[in-house]
Amino acid sequence: MPVRYTAPTPDSLLPVAGVALGAAAARIKKWDRNDLLLVVCDPGTVAAGVFTRNRFAAAPVQVCREHLAAQAASGASLRALVVNAGNANAGTGASGLADARAECVAVARLVGCAPEEVLPYSTGVIMEPLPVGRIIDGLPAAQAAARADGWFDAASAIMTTDTVPKGASHRVVVDGVPITVTGIAKGAGMIHPDMATMLAFMATDAPIAAGVLASLVREVADVSFNGATVDGDTSTNDSFVLAATGYAPMAPITSPDDPRLPAMRTAIEACAVALAQAIVRDGEGATKFIAIRVEGGVDADECRRVAFGIAHSPLVKTAFFASDPNLGRIVCAIGNAAAPDTDVTKVSFWLDDVQVVERGGRAPTYREEDGQRVMRQDEITIRVALGRGAAAATVWTCDLSHDYVSINADYRS
Amino acid sequence: MPVRYTAPTPDSLLPVAGVALGAAAARIKKWDRNDLLLVVCDPGTVAAGVFTRNRFAAAPVQVCREHLAAQAASGASLRALVVNAGNANAGTGASGLADARAECVAVARLVGCAPEEVLPYSTGVIMEPLPVGRIIDGLPAAQAAARADGWFDAASAIMTTDTVPKGASHRVVVDGVPITVTGIAKGAGMIHPDMATMLAFMATDAPIAAGVLASLVREVADVSFNGATVDGDTSTNDSFVLAATGYAPMAPITSPDDPRLPAMRTAIEACAVALAQAIVRDGEGATKFIAIRVEGGVDADECRRVAFGIAHSPLVKTAFFASDPNLGRIVCAIGNAAAPDTDVTKVSFWLDDVQVVERGGRAPTYREEDGQRVMRQDEITIRVALGRGAAAATVWTCDLSHDYVSINADYRS
Repeated sequence: MPVRYTAPTPDSLLPVAGVALGAAAARIKKWDRNDLLLVVCDPGTVAAGVFTRNRFAAAPVQVCREHLAAQAASGASLRALVVNAGNANAGTGASGLADARAECVAVARLVGCAPEEVLPYSTGVIMEPLPVGRIIDGLPAAQAAARADGWFDAASAIMTTDTVPKGASHRVVVDGVPITVTGIAKGAGMIHPDMATMLAFMATDAPIAAGVLASLVREVADVSFNGATVDGDTSTNDSFVLAATGYAPMAPITSPDDPRLPAMRTAIEACAVALAQAIVRDGEGATKFIAIRVEGGVDADECRRVAFGIAHSPLVKTAFFASDPNLGRIVCAIGNAAAPDTDVTKVSFWLDDVQVVERGGRAPTYREEDGQRVMRQDEITIRVALGRGAAAATVWTCDLSHDYVSINADYRS
Repeated sequence: MPVRYTAPTPDSLLPVAGVALGAAAARIKKWDRNDLLLVVCDPGTVAAGVFTRNRFAAAPVQVCREHLAAQAASGASLRALVVNAGNANAGTGASGLADARAECVAVARLVGCAPEEVLPYSTGVIMEPLPVGRIIDGLPAAQAAARADGWFDAASAIMTTDTVPKGASHRVVVDGVPITVTGIAKGAGMIHPDMATMLAFMATDAPIAAGVLASLVREVADVSFNGATVDGDTSTNDSFVLAATGYAPMAPITSPDDPRLPAMRTAIEACAVALAQAIVRDGEGATKFIAIRVEGGVDADECRRVAFGIAHSPLVKTAFFASDPNLGRIVCAIGNAAAPDTDVTKVSFWLDDVQVVERGGRAPTYREEDGQRVMRQDEITIRVALGRGAAAATVWTCDLSHDYVSINADYRS
């Protein structure tokens, strides 16, 4: 069960004009569920994406990068996204790359577009050959199922160890025109920036031009998916694509300084943050959702390093699982991640409203029962003040439980 | 139960002339066991050490650094080491520092030396005030118990979550003179370089001069304790001190080029490697011992980064726990830790004798049943070839089991 996450309902995910989604069962693994998703976008849709920095980037990630670059260079559209669950097509060498390209060719033939206008996503086990035949065979059924209100079914089809489908919609009125943003994501383990999510796809009907979208997607990723971590492992397949169909009746947004952009950015960010937090709330075995805010750093990178240092400490994570205010482990994690010239006598931290450390030592006001009270909650904020500068950063993580070990020990069985 | 580790017996830990060790029960926690150790060294003993790089270095670590620097500057001896288990005296601010100094003053009075000739170690819970009164009260009993063959009792007194005492002895004959090296260590969690061990103390009767010893202790740490990781958390208290009493009847070794040094170094390294591996073999919840050797790097640092990247991946560690050859997780971990300009099509890796990845893709000869066979073993070597240069490095780790979560969720209860 995810921590304080209300899964979307079919009705809560609003259609985006120009996008249809259809799922099908391709039996990528021996399971009885949909595991193939085809998203079809109308001509004129532009897209931008950010992808894993893992050096073993999966074949679909390599193809996504190529095809997005080709679309940007030629002004071609994003016409389709094809997603399979159950196999990551990563660590599969030249044949994996050929399989990912073959998928795109098959989709292009079906949809009636160029292969470069198709993006492939894969998620699942690494280093197994992709059953590309079964995917291609399943495409007509996915196409037949495609509808504008298919977002919920789409979110369900791309799940792996997720316990709930993840989706979010936001609507904002800009210059009297309603703008819709809807997105889906999956991911529960092997979650760490950059990217934090295994797979996310968001679309808006806002007419945002390709160049503006390319910057926007990076900025949005930095305040959403790149702040989410479950276990510190950046997967080979992480992909986040943002598509703009341009159906909203208003003049195109071609400049990053367009006054209409901030409201749209806020809606897009809200959607991305909801998806990123959903991934952590549904983190493998998670029983608690922990926000870590580090302030007073020299720059945001320093704050993120300290925040992730806390978020990745197995000792901190198991203490949260146990609701044990063994808060010296946070002291230790800060001490490992802080810059070498950090003056620890200026460092303080709080657990929600309870000050634990003041200027490098136990806060005189700290009482074990106050720490215990906060640790019993299922949602907790750690706030660290470094006393070095004015920068800040926030990341989200979950605890490390017995179920995390069980889920990952038994993943392939 | 540690993985393939035969704990020392009282007879297997050889006395080192000039060193006496005595343990006592100071009731640092509510337990019925020895938790205080006093090591007394004869005048003329020289020492050098390496300590945690955690910015929240514990009070005893700060005092050790000061006192070793004072000994080096003045030519004073190491006359005593005082160790307590159950409380780390870390994150305790100015009062913790005063407590650590008070301990040294009390020991100095008892032994008859200067406070600067005493080193303090502490291990246990972070951010609790040190019960320094109980330690000082326990010192006379520890002194009364001190004997040359007290190494085994000493190793037992400093345990925390360790399941077995850890010690090793080596003897080597140099120029016809037998040289003895004996050491003890403790540590099972919060284990990561630098330093990898919570606490280690080694002594030799070799007449190694202070200057030579200072370089030697760093070199030895790099090939032993700094290659050991259980959970990636560098503790606030990690300390390794190497003492030389000079009792062996031979001329002092005052130059790093002394031809007698290599044989001694080999014995000292063997002792340190045995202790470092013992810590990993007794890692919290460990069911497997995993050696990770990375070859073909541009430099040793690059190889260590990749090796630790594999060693710290919770997904890799849980796969080992499950004996599941889900080896794509190793691919993913290499991809995250490798240098950005790594050409993955030159990367290969092996699990013992089984080649899993060849030039960036699944090795054509790899068969699941071969991977399964090796994964079932309780001791496994991962060998990675990066194909970039001639450097190499080895680290040791263990798996991540349900017991790790249980031990760390329940640590303070």
